[in-house]
Amino acid sequence: MPNEVAEERSAGRSKRVVIIGAGFAGLEVAKTLGNAGLDVTVVDKANHHLFQPLLYQVATAALSATDVAEPIRRILRPYRSVDVIYGEVKTIAAEKDEIILADGVTLPFDYLVLAAGSQTSYFGNTHWAPWAPGLKCIDDARDIRSRLLINFERAERSPDAHERAKLMTIAIIGGGPTGVELAGSIAELSRHTLVADFRRIDPSSTRILLIEAGERILSAFSQEASRYAQARLERLGVDVLIQRRVTDIGPHSLALDGEEIEVGLVLWAAGVAASPLAGAFRVATDRSGRVPVDPQLRVVGRQNVFALGDNALFLNDQEQPLPGLAQVAKQQGRHLGDQLAAHLHDGREPEPFVYRSRGNTAIVGRHAAVFEHARWRIRGWFAWIAWAIIHVYLLIGFRHRLQVSIQWLWRYLTFDRGARLITRKEAPVAGKHHGPDAG
Amino acid sequence: MPNEVAEERSAGRSKRVVIIGAGFAGLEVAKTLGNAGLDVTVVDKANHHLFQPLLYQVATAALSATDVAEPIRRILRPYRSVDVIYGEVKTIAAEKDEIILADGVTLPFDYLVLAAGSQTSYFGNTHWAPWAPGLKCIDDARDIRSRLLINFERAERSPDAHERAKLMTIAIIGGGPTGVELAGSIAELSRHTLVADFRRIDPSSTRILLIEAGERILSAFSQEASRYAQARLERLGVDVLIQRRVTDIGPHSLALDGEEIEVGLVLWAAGVAASPLAGAFRVATDRSGRVPVDPQLRVVGRQNVFALGDNALFLNDQEQPLPGLAQVAKQQGRHLGDQLAAHLHDGREPEPFVYRSRGNTAIVGRHAAVFEHARWRIRGWFAWIAWAIIHVYLLIGFRHRLQVSIQWLWRYLTFDRGARLITRKEAPVAGKHHGPDAG
Repeated sequence: MPNEVAEERSAGRSKRVVIIGAGFAGLEVAKTLGNAGLDVTVVDKANHHLFQPLLYQVATAALSATDVAEPIRRILRPYRSVDVIYGEVKTIAAEKDEIILADGVTLPFDYLVLAAGSQTSYFGNTHWAPWAPGLKCIDDARDIRSRLLINFERAERSPDAHERAKLMTIAIIGGGPTGVELAGSIAELSRHTLVADFRRIDPSSTRILLIEAGERILSAFSQEASRYAQARLERLGVDVLIQRRVTDIGPHSLALDGEEIEVGLVLWAAGVAASPLAGAFRVATDRSGRVPVDPQLRVVGRQNVFALGDNALFLNDQEQPLPGLAQVAKQQGRHLGDQLAAHLHDGREPEPFVYRSRGNTAIVGRHAAVFEHARWRIRGWFAWIAWAIIHVYLLIGFRHRLQVSIQWLWRYLTFDRGARLITRKEAPVAGKHHGPDAG
Repeated sequence: MPNEVAEERSAGRSKRVVIIGAGFAGLEVAKTLGNAGLDVTVVDKANHHLFQPLLYQVATAALSATDVAEPIRRILRPYRSVDVIYGEVKTIAAEKDEIILADGVTLPFDYLVLAAGSQTSYFGNTHWAPWAPGLKCIDDARDIRSRLLINFERAERSPDAHERAKLMTIAIIGGGPTGVELAGSIAELSRHTLVADFRRIDPSSTRILLIEAGERILSAFSQEASRYAQARLERLGVDVLIQRRVTDIGPHSLALDGEEIEVGLVLWAAGVAASPLAGAFRVATDRSGRVPVDPQLRVVGRQNVFALGDNALFLNDQEQPLPGLAQVAKQQGRHLGDQLAAHLHDGREPEPFVYRSRGNTAIVGRHAAVFEHARWRIRGWFAWIAWAIIHVYLLIGFRHRLQVSIQWLWRYLTFDRGARLITRKEAPVAGKHHGPDAG
C-alpha cells in the first residue's frame, strides 16, 4: 500500500508528534499537546482506551467490558489537531524517524512517544500461555470469564466426584495486586454469587489457590499489609501458598516445585513485560523489557524519542525503577506533554520528571483493602471505600462513573453479578483456542 | 461418557419435564412448572437468556452485551425443582422419550417442550453467511459491531476515495422490524455519534441501503405504517430499495437483480428458520422449519411433546400461522406451563391455547416508531416513548431496567454510544472468520 496518507500527514504543517499507545500515558500526552493545538497522531491496536485497574472485575463477571473501555476517538474528539489511527505498529525505524505499521504503511515522525504498555510475560515459558491466560485486554478478560463459568457448568454435569473437584480448583499464579484481586473476587463469586444457582455442586466449596514464589503476597506493600491481605483471603477461603514455585503448567495440571496438582483453571498474574517495541533502540532493556530513559523521559541516546509508563526504565532518587502503575504513566504523560508543548512553542529545554506517589492500593474483598502512602497505612473498610471512590473518580466520563457505581451498589446489596456471560461458541478446548500466544 | 447423571435424574421422583431452550417460551414454562414444584430440566446451549428485541442495539454499539443477557441459572434460582443444563441438544429420540446432547449424554423425559427458537436462514444460500452476518446471538451482535466500526477505521486510513466510499456503504437485507431497526440505528450512529470523531472521513456520508424483496417494508404492519417508516428512514438518509431481489453476495459486493453494487458491509435480516430440532418428528415442517402443533401445543401425532414459539406452526382462527414474536412465545409458554402443571397434578386434560395480541411495534429512529393494535395505529413520538417504556418493562430484573434506562437517557441527551468496542484480535478477513457457518 502506498503511504500517501502518511506523506500528506507530515507535509505542510509543523512538527508532528507520533504517540504509540492510548493507555494512561499516551492519552495524557495527546490531550496536553492537543490542548496546545499541536499536530499529534495516536496509534493504537485497540479502538478503545482500557481502564486496566478494573479489568479483573470484567474477568470475574462483576463489570461489563464496556464499563472499563472508552473509544479513543471519543476521548480525543475535542482535540482537533489530534489524529487517531487504529493500527498495529510493527517496527520503529528510529534511524529514519518513522514507524511502520503491520499493514506496511509508514508514518514519519518528528517526535516519537513510546507508550505501548506491557503484555503478559511467561518468562520464557510461552508454552504455558494456552493453559494459563493472563489479563491484559478485553479479550483476555472475556476469555477468563468464560473459562471460569464453563468450569462450574461442567462440574454441575459431571457424575465423577474427582472430576468435579478438579474442575472446581482454580490456581492463580502471582501474589501481586492483580493476583490478590482475582483471588478475592473469585472467592466472592463462588461463595456468594453462584452459591444458590446450582443444584448438584456447591460452588462455595471451590478451591482457590493463590501461589506466590516470593516471601509474601503484595510485596510492594508493608509487611503488615501482606499479613492482613493473606488473613483476609484465607477468611474468604483462599489457600495462599507462599514461596512455592511453579515448575510446569499443563492443560489440567500444575506443578509446584515438582509436585503435581490437578486444576480446572490456571490464571497467570505473575508477570508482565514491556511491549517488544521498547527493544527497538540500540540500548539494552532491563529484565522487564523496559528501555532506559533520562530524567527528561528521552530514550537514552535519542533526542526525539520518549518512552513512558511500562515501557520506560526510569530511576528515581534512590536509583530504584518506578513501578508499573497507572499513576506513574499518567504523571509521566502529563509532564512530557507540558514539556514537549513548551519546547515546540518556544524551544524551551525539557525539565526533568519527578514522580509524586499518590499512594498504593489493592483490594482484597468486600470491606477489605489496603492503602499505603508514605507513613499512612490504612486497611479494612475505610481503605475499601477509598479504593472504590478513587477508582470511580478515575474512570473516564460521567457515564462510566454512573454505570460502575450502580453495578457496584447493586452487587454490594445483592451479591449478584450482572455480567455472567459465556459467549464463546465453543467451550475452551485445551490449547486450541484463545491462549495469548496460541491465537 | 456414562449417563449416570441422567439416570439418577429420572429415577425416584415423579414425572420429568425437559425443556429445550431458555428463550421467552421456555423460561415461562420453567417458571410456571417450577412454581408448582414440578421436576423440570432446562437445556440451553447458552448460559444466558437473551432479550432478542434489543439485540440490534448491541450490534450498533448502543447497549452492552450484558444489558440484554441474564444468566439462566440466575433467573431460575428461586425454583428449586428446576434444573439447568448448559449443553447443546444434538438429537431428539422421540420414540425413546429421550434427548441426546452433543457430548453424548442421554436425557430421558416424560414430557418434552421444544422451545429452541430460530436461527438465521439464507434460504439455501448458506455460502452467503460469511459475507452477510445475521443477528441471533451475542456473538453475532459483537461480530456485527466490530465489522461496522472497523470499516470506519479502515475508511479513515484509506488514501483511495473509491475504497472509502465502498467501505462506507452498508447494505441491510430484509425490511422487517430487525432490518428497519438496524438501518435506523446505523443511520443515527453515523450521522450523530461518530460524526465528530474522525478527521478525514465524514461518517454522516455513510450510504445505508435497506433492501426489501417485497412490496413494502414492515409488511406485518399497515400500509400507512410502511409509508411512514420509509419516509422516516429516508429522512435519516437511508436508501430504501423496494422490490429488489438479492441474487448474490460476495466478500465486497452484492448483486441486486443481477446488478452488482460494491459494499463494505452486508447485514442479513431477511429471514430466520426454526431450530433444526423441530424437524425431529415424523411430521412435515413448514417453509420456516416449524412443526405443526395442535391447539394444545402438542406436536401433531405426539402426546408428550410440545413445541412453542418459533418452533411451532400454530394456526389461529383464520388458519394463519402465529408470527415469530416474543409475546407469542411468552403466552404459549405460560399457557403450556399452567396446563401441564394442572395435568400433572390431577390429570386434567389441557385446554387449547388462544393468542391475544398485545399489538405490534417497531422502532425507526429517535422519536419515530410505529405501534399497531387492532384499530389502534400510533406513529411518531408517542409510539416511540411507548416502545421504550414497554421494552424496559419487559427486561428481566430491576438492574437491567435501570442500566438500559440510563444508557438510553444518556444517548438521548448526548447522541453518544457507550459500547463502541472492537475486541476481535484480527480485523475480519472475508470468509476466514465469524460467519455463522464459517466458524
